[in-house]
Amino acid sequence: MSEIKVAATQMKCTQNLDENIAAAEKLVLESAGAGAQIILLQELFETQYFCQTQSYEYLQIAKTLEENRAINHFKTIAKKLGVVLPISFYECCGNTAFNSIAVIDADGRILGVYRKTHIPDGHFYEEKFYFTPGDTGFKVWQTAFGKIGIGICWDQWFCEAARIMTLLGAEILLYPTAIGCEPVLNTDTRKHWQIVMQGHAAANIIPVAASNRIGTQKIDGQEMTFYGNSFITNSIGEIICSMNDRDAGFIIASFDFEKINMQRRQWGIFRDRRPEMYREILTHGF
Amino acid sequence: MSEIKVAATQMKCTQNLDENIAAAEKLVLESAGAGAQIILLQELFETQYFCQTQSYEYLQIAKTLEENRAINHFKTIAKKLGVVLPISFYECCGNTAFNSIAVIDADGRILGVYRKTHIPDGHFYEEKFYFTPGDTGFKVWQTAFGKIGIGICWDQWFCEAARIMTLLGAEILLYPTAIGCEPVLNTDTRKHWQIVMQGHAAANIIPVAASNRIGTQKIDGQEMTFYGNSFITNSIGEIICSMNDRDAGFIIASFDFEKINMQRRQWGIFRDRRPEMYREILTHGF
Repeated sequence: MSEIKVAATQMKCTQNLDENIAAAEKLVLESAGAGAQIILLQELFETQYFCQTQSYEYLQIAKTLEENRAINHFKTIAKKLGVVLPISFYECCGNTAFNSIAVIDADGRILGVYRKTHIPDGHFYEEKFYFTPGDTGFKVWQTAFGKIGIGICWDQWFCEAARIMTLLGAEILLYPTAIGCEPVLNTDTRKHWQIVMQGHAAANIIPVAASNRIGTQKIDGQEMTFYGNSFITNSIGEIICSMNDRDAGFIIASFDFEKINMQRRQWGIFRDRRPEMYREILTHGF
Repeated sequence: MSEIKVAATQMKCTQNLDENIAAAEKLVLESAGAGAQIILLQELFETQYFCQTQSYEYLQIAKTLEENRAINHFKTIAKKLGVVLPISFYECCGNTAFNSIAVIDADGRILGVYRKTHIPDGHFYEEKFYFTPGDTGFKVWQTAFGKIGIGICWDQWFCEAARIMTLLGAEILLYPTAIGCEPVLNTDTRKHWQIVMQGHAAANIIPVAASNRIGTQKIDGQEMTFYGNSFITNSIGEIICSMNDRDAGFIIASFDFEKINMQRRQWGIFRDRRPEMYREILTHGF
C-alpha cells in the first residue's frame, strides 16, 4: 500500500439529527466513491453548533459512546465501504461531558476515543459551559490506512498538540472543526486559522486535513455563519486543495506516508530536538 | 511609544571580515535612516558560511564575546544610532565553541548572549562539527523597543523555541539565518522555510522577522547558493514584506506591540493551554 487517499468534507447542519446524519452519509459515500480511504467529517455534525449560546437544555444532547446515533450508524457504513471514519460527538460521562471523537476503523471497529484537550470560551463559542477539558491526552491510532492523529477544533491552534501527535507516530493530522464569524471581536480569522495549521504541517513534516462546517444558524435571535474553507496541506504545509465558504462537498488528496516518514527523517528536525531544553512548555510562562 | 519599526537585512558575505562588517554597517545605517529601531542582521555575517565544509582551520574563527570584532564595532554604532542590534557570532568558550548571538541595546550595552539550541548536520551544513548545542536555554530581552526573542537559523524549525520565547514574554521573534540550496537532498526548501515560521507567528500571535544571506560561495571546489528571501510577518503569520534571492537590502515593518499583546490575550489560546498535558514534548517520542 503506497498511496493513501484522504478526504475532508464540509456541510451545513440543521436542527434535525436524521437530516444531518443523512447529509454526512452522502458525503462519505461520494468521497469513498472517489477512492477516499480516510474520510474526515466536521465537528459535532449531528446538530447545529449549540455552543453559540449557553442553554441548560442542550446539556441533554450529550450521549455515551454506546448510545450515540452517528457512531452506531457510521460503524456499519465504515465496514461496508472499508473506510476509516472518525466521528465527532458530544460525549456524556457521568456527571459531566466531553467534546469527543470516536475513531472507526475500516472494519467497523472502534479503535478508541479522544477527548478535546483545549476548550475555547467566548461569545458564540461557549464551550467551557458544555465541555470539561479532555482527560485522555493526545492520541494516535493505527488504522487500516496509516497512523492518524486527531485534534478537535480549538486543538488546532496549539503547536503542542500537533507536535505530540507527531511524536506519538502520527502520519497525518486531522482536525474536525466548527469555526465562523466573530460577531463581537469582529475579525476574520480565516487566514490565521489556515496559517496556524499550515505551520503544524511544516513544523512536523506531516500532511494536515481540516474539515469545517458551513451555513448560518440563528439561536436566541443571534446569528452566526461558519466559513467552511476546509483544506488539506502537503507535508511542507502548502494547501493543496480547499473548498469555499458556501458549498457542501469534499476534497481529496493522496499521500505516500512511507515517503513522507523518510522525508521527516532526512530533514533531521526530530533528530535535533532537545527535550531537556523545553521545560518551560510545561508552564504558563513568565 | 506605540509603533516600533523593525528591519530585516540581507547581504552577500565575502572572505574578507572588514568588507563584511562594512556591508553590514551600510545596511544598518540605511535601515536606521528609514526609521528602524530594531535591526536584524543575518547569521554569522562576519565570514562566508564556513560550515559548508569540515575544516579544523576554521575552528580558529571562534572568538570570545570580548574579542569579537563585529560586536565591538556595532556597540558603537548601536549607541550612535539608538538602535537595537543583535549580532550573531562564532563564540569561543574554553575547549569548545557555540553559535551565538549578542544582543546590543540602543544604548550600546550588551544585554546578554543566547547560544543556538538546535544544531543541524548534513551535507553543506556541517554545524555539529563546529558548534556545541547551546546551553543558555531560550532567552528574551527587554530592549529600549520592546521584548525580543531570538532563535538562530535551525532554531526556526522548532515550534518549541517559538512557544517558549512567547511564554517568556517575547513581543517579536527574530531569526538570523544562513540557508540555501540542498545540493544532495536536491529540494527547494524556500516555501517550507517560510511556512514553518509563518506558523510560529500564527500559533503565538507574534510578528516574526527572518534575515537570510544571499550569494554563491565555493569552498573546496563545492558550490552553494543562499536564497535570501528575508521576510517579516504580521501577528497572524501573513508575510507583509519580503526580499528576493539576489539583492542586498532591507525591509521594514511597524508593529504596535501593546495592541498585539492584547490581541493575543483576546484570542484566548494562552488562557486555554494545558501544560499538564504536554509531557510528551519532553521526550523523543514513541
